[in-house]
Amino acid sequence: MGENIGAAARAMANFGLSDLRLVAPRDGWPNPKASDTAGKALNIIDDATVHEDVPAALADCNFVLATTARERAMSLPVMEVREAMSQLYTRASRGEKCAVMFGPERTGLENEDMALADAVVTIPVSTEYASLNIGQAVVVCAYEWFSHVHTAGATTFARSVAQPNALQAVPELATREQLQGLLGQLELALDDVNFWRVPEKKDIMWRNIRATLVRAGLSEQEIATWRGVVKALRGK
Amino acid sequence: MGENIGAAARAMANFGLSDLRLVAPRDGWPNPKASDTAGKALNIIDDATVHEDVPAALADCNFVLATTARERAMSLPVMEVREAMSQLYTRASRGEKCAVMFGPERTGLENEDMALADAVVTIPVSTEYASLNIGQAVVVCAYEWFSHVHTAGATTFARSVAQPNALQAVPELATREQLQGLLGQLELALDDVNFWRVPEKKDIMWRNIRATLVRAGLSEQEIATWRGVVKALRGK
Repeated sequence: MGENIGAAARAMANFGLSDLRLVAPRDGWPNPKASDTAGKALNIIDDATVHEDVPAALADCNFVLATTARERAMSLPVMEVREAMSQLYTRASRGEKCAVMFGPERTGLENEDMALADAVVTIPVSTEYASLNIGQAVVVCAYEWFSHVHTAGATTFARSVAQPNALQAVPELATREQLQGLLGQLELALDDVNFWRVPEKKDIMWRNIRATLVRAGLSEQEIATWRGVVKALRGK
Repeated sequence: MGENIGAAARAMANFGLSDLRLVAPRDGWPNPKASDTAGKALNIIDDATVHEDVPAALADCNFVLATTARERAMSLPVMEVREAMSQLYTRASRGEKCAVMFGPERTGLENEDMALADAVVTIPVSTEYASLNIGQAVVVCAYEWFSHVHTAGATTFARSVAQPNALQAVPELATREQLQGLLGQLELALDDVNFWRVPEKKDIMWRNIRATLVRAGLSEQEIATWRGVVKALRGK
């Protein structure tokens, strides 16, 4: 189905893949429905190659994985997708040409196509509904592939280069002294309004309140805001 | 879009999830297009609940993750999907009600919806084409969720022995409704004392204050304590 080819192309682009090979597509090629679901991955659609049969499509490949939903009595190693993509990544990094093969949605891969694979990839799914849409199966494989590219990138180019966005997103914590300023102000205000009622209870109550503010990991700006809140609520 | 809702439902069923909540669906509900792409996950479509706004949809939830493609200047922890689903699994195993929130495909989540989340989830994608289709984003999250269910099934005994301390250390969160109660009370109190001074500033100031309280991960008991603090400071 064109829609599935387009969805597969989009997932490939999202996860850094580009070489799409089609074997005897049911509705011919090109297929406008593929472009409809490919989003901005139109270059993958345009560059896709069409092959008469599976051996022709795999001719230049060194390592081939076959995806299947069914258990088969084939003498092939079976790997879960995480492990499979890890091995694929290792091989591709060495310059081996690797392929992941998907069958038609309803029927899956023929046994004679499976026989061309080095291993079978399975995706763990619920036993209640084990049939993945082919576009969604491509998403999972491509995502697992990219998680290796991504992780490798982070270690190769050093964390300081690879993770600036993640670091920026973590709020810059105020100093303990600034936090202490807010806590002191709040404690005084609560003393003032006789919040504790029974003095013996203050210790544990105050410890609990303090803990929530420490846990919030407040920035300098947020400390200032909260000091304003406490002051305003007291009407002072 | 109905097609995306259907694709999300299908991915949920494939990976053992079932509780689908929709907020003000653009084309109304029920939507036949959702059933068209849901495959055999029609029970999820039939059981989906429709909510007027995000706070209503999240009312009974203890822990909420927000997905976003964009980096935002929000003071929320940012986690990659693998780590995020690991934490979600730990919390859900303890009986906490957990949610993953997805925004409309084009615009994503509004900042005020993001402010209701405990953390932001990112999916590592290629910089060349970083925009995931929403159905595909659901596939990745649901797949990572299920990888924990799946692994846990294989090692139930080891986990229950090895992790009790780690599990105890995660605070038991209040529901979103309880948190909303505290936030509503605080907002009214701040309105009351004319805290914002300039009305245009309220939006961003209030969002920042709210974010610190969401981030603190308050328990039911702590919510009650803070409600007492706000009330006492107002001298009421």
